[in-house]
Amino acid sequence: MAPPSEYRVFAVGGMPEVVAGDDLAALIDAALTAQETPLEAGDVLVVTQKIVSKAEGRMIRLDDVSAGQFAQEWADDWEKDARAVELVLQESKRIVRMTRGLIVSETREGWVCANAGVDQSNVGGGGAVTLLPVDSSASAAAIRRGLVERGQIDVPVIVTDTFGRPWRNGLTNVAIGVSGMNPIRSYVGEVDAEGYDLRVTEMAIVDELASAAEPVMNKLDQVPVAVVRGLNIPVEEFDHSALVRPAETDLFR
Amino acid sequence: MAPPSEYRVFAVGGMPEVVAGDDLAALIDAALTAQETPLEAGDVLVVTQKIVSKAEGRMIRLDDVSAGQFAQEWADDWEKDARAVELVLQESKRIVRMTRGLIVSETREGWVCANAGVDQSNVGGGGAVTLLPVDSSASAAAIRRGLVERGQIDVPVIVTDTFGRPWRNGLTNVAIGVSGMNPIRSYVGEVDAEGYDLRVTEMAIVDELASAAEPVMNKLDQVPVAVVRGLNIPVEEFDHSALVRPAETDLFR
Repeated sequence: MAPPSEYRVFAVGGMPEVVAGDDLAALIDAALTAQETPLEAGDVLVVTQKIVSKAEGRMIRLDDVSAGQFAQEWADDWEKDARAVELVLQESKRIVRMTRGLIVSETREGWVCANAGVDQSNVGGGGAVTLLPVDSSASAAAIRRGLVERGQIDVPVIVTDTFGRPWRNGLTNVAIGVSGMNPIRSYVGEVDAEGYDLRVTEMAIVDELASAAEPVMNKLDQVPVAVVRGLNIPVEEFDHSALVRPAETDLFR
Repeated sequence: MAPPSEYRVFAVGGMPEVVAGDDLAALIDAALTAQETPLEAGDVLVVTQKIVSKAEGRMIRLDDVSAGQFAQEWADDWEKDARAVELVLQESKRIVRMTRGLIVSETREGWVCANAGVDQSNVGGGGAVTLLPVDSSASAAAIRRGLVERGQIDVPVIVTDTFGRPWRNGLTNVAIGVSGMNPIRSYVGEVDAEGYDLRVTEMAIVDELASAAEPVMNKLDQVPVAVVRGLNIPVEEFDHSALVRPAETDLFR
């Protein structure tokens, strides 16, 4: 299939500050309607993890956490907050690296990232932190379903977070949850223009769209939702686990 | 600065098959002109590594490579082409992982990737492979300069390649060379809407733009150039080394 020669990304403005219990689909529907940009077939809706976590009540006050001995000793060694370290351990199913004061671990959903996604920024102060959603793809599916119930066209929904990477400076926005699209666009077995077999070209299209959405989702300006329009992404049911690299091909576990 | 609420990405169509010695700036200028999309201030031009390598003659026929003993033994162990393994070693300044038949290494430019970017796909068959450009940012700068000489507006140029990642399936398009923009967009020291200090939020904006461009740069359809328009990226001189994570913060060397 020939690629679209053009697409665009736009912010969904006017979202209110999200609090626990909020119906994100209702808020997003209202924001889309207010700016007169209803969803169109082929769109992808991109939503930052932060508002999903807030709506789902995934905030914890550090004052309410009591650190175990392991977290306490590590925190003492590296001058960290032991309660935050305890939360990172609780959110992890496996530690990948734990050195130089940094923890990279695998979350229960299978994402490998710093601090298991426990985030101390932008959650209202007072020692509160946000945790990643328990099931980000279920969160994406709930938003998608809620939007359809409100009369919006059914489009894929991606929940994103900003992760660091080995070897390269800077964070990029990646998908941590997806509903309604294949996270991988595969060229396996296809043949290029010169007849050479493109053996294993599998693009992580959801991560690319997460990154594409980030420049309009400024952290400081409360734009937690964006729409990618023009790529004609078909609605298909896939599990986000297609994005988790299997152990046998992962040299950095 | 408030983010633009919208931007778009479009393909630069009609590029001919690139061969060694071609003037990429001339070809891109002609293609931009033919489709009546001259560059505009604030645009970013994204160019795939493959045409840069081709124009710079960075192709090698495997028949012309003689493998050393180390490459030969590894290739025998893992049923690889020893000549291709030899090229990977020659293109690397350091091996990061070398196991299960896979080589992840650091290129002379500092990029960590599979096979040092040595690529057997889409280069005309006959046992030819492409190597990464010797200095991708210099290549980007040359394209940028050549476009200005031809009367195009001066905009940043990114040279991209598709790299795999640890932990996550699928490739994403990333920057391996950049001229004319800061590869990192930093929020360090800025304060969010609730007064909480965003301590170390540095986004790898060039990688996000590389990913954003990829969906219109289909590997099978010979679209090696795209334009990102509407983000109002200022032209500034930066070194791409800002994208290479320093050893002291890299847990996966």
